[in-house]
Amino acid sequence: MNIALITIGNELLAGFTVNTNASWIGTYVLKAGGKVLWHQTIGDSKEEIHHALMSVPSGCETIIITGGLGPTHDDVTAVALYDYAEDSPVFDEAYWDNLQKRLSKRNMTLPDLNRNQAMRPQKGNVIDNPVGSARGLHFIVDDKHIYAVPGVPREMKEMMKSTILPFIRQNSENMLFVRTIRTTGIMESALAEKLAHIVQDTPNGLTIAFLPQFTGVDVRLSSHDENRIKDLAEQIQSTVGKYIYGFDDDRLEDTIGEMLSGKSLTIATAESCTGGLIGHRITNVSGSSSYYVGGIVSYSNDVKESALNVDHDVLEKHGAVSPETAIQMAENVREVLHADLGLSVTGIAGPTGGTKEKPVGLVYIALADGNNTIVKEFRFVKDRTLNKNASSQTALNMVRLYLMSKVNK
Amino acid sequence: MNIALITIGNELLAGFTVNTNASWIGTYVLKAGGKVLWHQTIGDSKEEIHHALMSVPSGCETIIITGGLGPTHDDVTAVALYDYAEDSPVFDEAYWDNLQKRLSKRNMTLPDLNRNQAMRPQKGNVIDNPVGSARGLHFIVDDKHIYAVPGVPREMKEMMKSTILPFIRQNSENMLFVRTIRTTGIMESALAEKLAHIVQDTPNGLTIAFLPQFTGVDVRLSSHDENRIKDLAEQIQSTVGKYIYGFDDDRLEDTIGEMLSGKSLTIATAESCTGGLIGHRITNVSGSSSYYVGGIVSYSNDVKESALNVDHDVLEKHGAVSPETAIQMAENVREVLHADLGLSVTGIAGPTGGTKEKPVGLVYIALADGNNTIVKEFRFVKDRTLNKNASSQTALNMVRLYLMSKVNK
Repeated sequence: MNIALITIGNELLAGFTVNTNASWIGTYVLKAGGKVLWHQTIGDSKEEIHHALMSVPSGCETIIITGGLGPTHDDVTAVALYDYAEDSPVFDEAYWDNLQKRLSKRNMTLPDLNRNQAMRPQKGNVIDNPVGSARGLHFIVDDKHIYAVPGVPREMKEMMKSTILPFIRQNSENMLFVRTIRTTGIMESALAEKLAHIVQDTPNGLTIAFLPQFTGVDVRLSSHDENRIKDLAEQIQSTVGKYIYGFDDDRLEDTIGEMLSGKSLTIATAESCTGGLIGHRITNVSGSSSYYVGGIVSYSNDVKESALNVDHDVLEKHGAVSPETAIQMAENVREVLHADLGLSVTGIAGPTGGTKEKPVGLVYIALADGNNTIVKEFRFVKDRTLNKNASSQTALNMVRLYLMSKVNK
Repeated sequence: MNIALITIGNELLAGFTVNTNASWIGTYVLKAGGKVLWHQTIGDSKEEIHHALMSVPSGCETIIITGGLGPTHDDVTAVALYDYAEDSPVFDEAYWDNLQKRLSKRNMTLPDLNRNQAMRPQKGNVIDNPVGSARGLHFIVDDKHIYAVPGVPREMKEMMKSTILPFIRQNSENMLFVRTIRTTGIMESALAEKLAHIVQDTPNGLTIAFLPQFTGVDVRLSSHDENRIKDLAEQIQSTVGKYIYGFDDDRLEDTIGEMLSGKSLTIATAESCTGGLIGHRITNVSGSSSYYVGGIVSYSNDVKESALNVDHDVLEKHGAVSPETAIQMAENVREVLHADLGLSVTGIAGPTGGTKEKPVGLVYIALADGNNTIVKEFRFVKDRTLNKNASSQTALNMVRLYLMSKVNK
C-alpha cells in the first residue's frame, strides 16, 4: 500500500521544529508493509491543504496528514478536510462533556476556544486520542483514505498504532522486516570486505545497507521474508561476531551491563578527557547500580595524584596523556573504589592543548582486572565532541571484548 | 523571496534518515529574508523530480533541491535537471583533472564511476564544492531559479552559504532577525505570566514564541526590525533576568564556565544519580580544565563512604538520598579534590528503586563553598533520562545563581 504524507505547520517550514514525525511514520509504515512514496510539508492554510491533497500522486491510495488539529485559529486542518470531503460537522455533546469532566478532575476548566475540538464529521469518523484533547479524523474521498492526526508526537503515535498502522497492515501484501546489526571497532570498508562473500550471495528481495557513524557501523538488513533476515544475520554473526555489540536499538552500555551482571563482576571508571561521559553512559542503564560502583573524574593532575594515587614521577616523566598514566589510573581506581575491574581513559580532547608529539585526538585507554592490565593507544580526530564519543565507545568496547574473552576461556 | 524546497532520497521517505537538512535550510532562508513556503520529499527518480518541479506553487520564485548528486546510479538529480532545463551537459576536463589530483595526494585513484561528477551544464552554472566531489547546479527555467546541492549536510551548508543564501539576501526586502532567550528554573505558565505586560504591548511585526522543554523554556523573538528585538530582549532581561542563562545556542555549561573563569574559581562534582553527566557537560566546554578539577561518581554507598568520606551513620540514618548526604557529598568533594566549590547530586533516577517516602524523581542537590552549603529538594518525574537531564540542569543552574549572587554583593 502506497502512502502520501502531508505534514502541516509553519514551524516545520521555518525549520524551528525538526520533522521527526515524518521519519517515525516512514519507518513504521514500512514495517507495516506500506511505503511512503511522497511527502509534502505546507503551512497552516486551507488553500495549501487543498492544493496538497490535489497534488497527491495517483499511485498513493492512502493519505496521512499530521498537524493543525489544535484549538487555535492557526489550526485549520479540520475545516479544510470538512470542505474537501463536502461534509458538515456536528457538535459532539457527549465528547464535550467528557472533555470537561477530564479537566475538572485536575481542577481546570476548558475554555470555549476548545469547542471546535468536539466537532465530529457526519460522513467520516473520529480517531480516539487517549493522551490529548484533539481527536483524529478519517474520510474516504474518491476511494482514497484520508487520515488526519495531531502533530504532537505522542498523540500522533498513539493514533498511528491504534488505527492507521493496523489498516495499512491489513491492506498490504507483505510486512517488511528490518534488522539492524550494530558493530564497533571496525571501519566500514574493512567490514564490507569481510562480508563481501556473504553479501554477493544475497538473494533478491533482501537489502543490505552499511550505515557508518563515528562510533561504529550499523548494518541494516531488510526483507519481506523474516527467515531470510534471520539466516543472513546468523551468517554475519558467525563471520564478524567479534565486532557486533547488539541489534536494533541496543546500546553498547546495555550489552556490557548484561555481561557484567551475568558474571557478577563490578566495574569502576577513571576518566580524564571524557569528563564523566563513560559513567553517564553506564548509568543510563536501569539497574546499573548492581555492577557500577562509581568513578573518579580526574580532570586535573592534582586529582590524578590525590584521589587516584598516580605517581607524581610518572606524571612528570611521561605526562598525563601516556600509557603509564592510563595504566595507573585503571589499576588504582579498581583498588580505591573496590571494584573487580578498573577502566581508565586519558587523552587530548581538543580543539586546543595538542602538541607535535601529543596531538589532539591522542587517547590511551586501559583496563585492569587485578591480574593483568591492558592499555591501548588511539588516534581520533580534531573535534572535542567526536573525541569524547569515540573514546567512551572504544573504552566500553574494550570491556566487552575483555568479558567475551573470559567466556571463551 | 519565496522558496520551494525539494529534498530527494528514498532514505528520507523510509524514515531511516531524519530530514535535518530541511530544518537547517528553513531557518537560514528565513534569516536571509526569504521564506520556505512549500517543501516536498520524493524518491530518487527522474519522473518524481519532474512531477515535483511542475507542482511547485506559482508564488515560489526560487527552488532549492537537495540530494541525488552522487556518483551512483541512484543519483538521478543532475540528469533530471538537464532534461528539465533542456540542456546538454559537457564533460569538464579541467575539473576531472583537478579531482584526480586531489585524490592522488591521498594516494587514491578516482573510479570511472565518478566521471559523471565532472559533467557541467551549458545553459546553467556549477556551484563549487570545497568539501566534496559533487558540484552543485544552477539553472533558470521559466524565470524561476533552480539550485541543486548534495544531500550531505556539510556540502549542502557550504553551497548554501557561498551562493544560495547571498542570492536570497540580495533579492529579499528584509532579513529576519531571530533571538532566542534561554531560561531555566521557571515553568512556561509562570514565565508567560511574568512577561504578560511586555508581550501585550508588543508592536506588530514582532513574534514571540514560548518553547518549553524539560530542562527550561526558550523564548524566541523574531522581527524584521533588529532594534525592536534588542529592545524587547532588554525588557525581558530586566523582568526575568534571574532565569535567563543565555541566548541562541548558549549552553548552561558555557555560561557557568565563563562565570567561573571570570572569578578564578574552581569546582568539583560529587554525582550519584546523574552518574557523571554533570562532569560530562562541564567538560563539553573547551578550556574547562582551568576551572573544573574533576569529580567523584559515588554510585554505591561504599564509594560515598570510602572516596567521599560520607559518615556511615548519616547513610544509615538518613539514607543515600537525603539532604544530609547531599550536604556531606558537596562539602567533602570540595575538600578531597581541593576545589573552591563542591557540587553534589543524589536522587532516585528510576524507573525502579522508589519507595512511598522516597519516590522515583526525588533528588537533592547541594552546593558548598567552604563557608556555607545550600541544599535543595526537587521532585522530578518517573523517567530515568529526563531525571538525569533535569538534575544536571538544575545543579548547573544552582551554580549560576550562586555566582550571580556573588556579583551582586
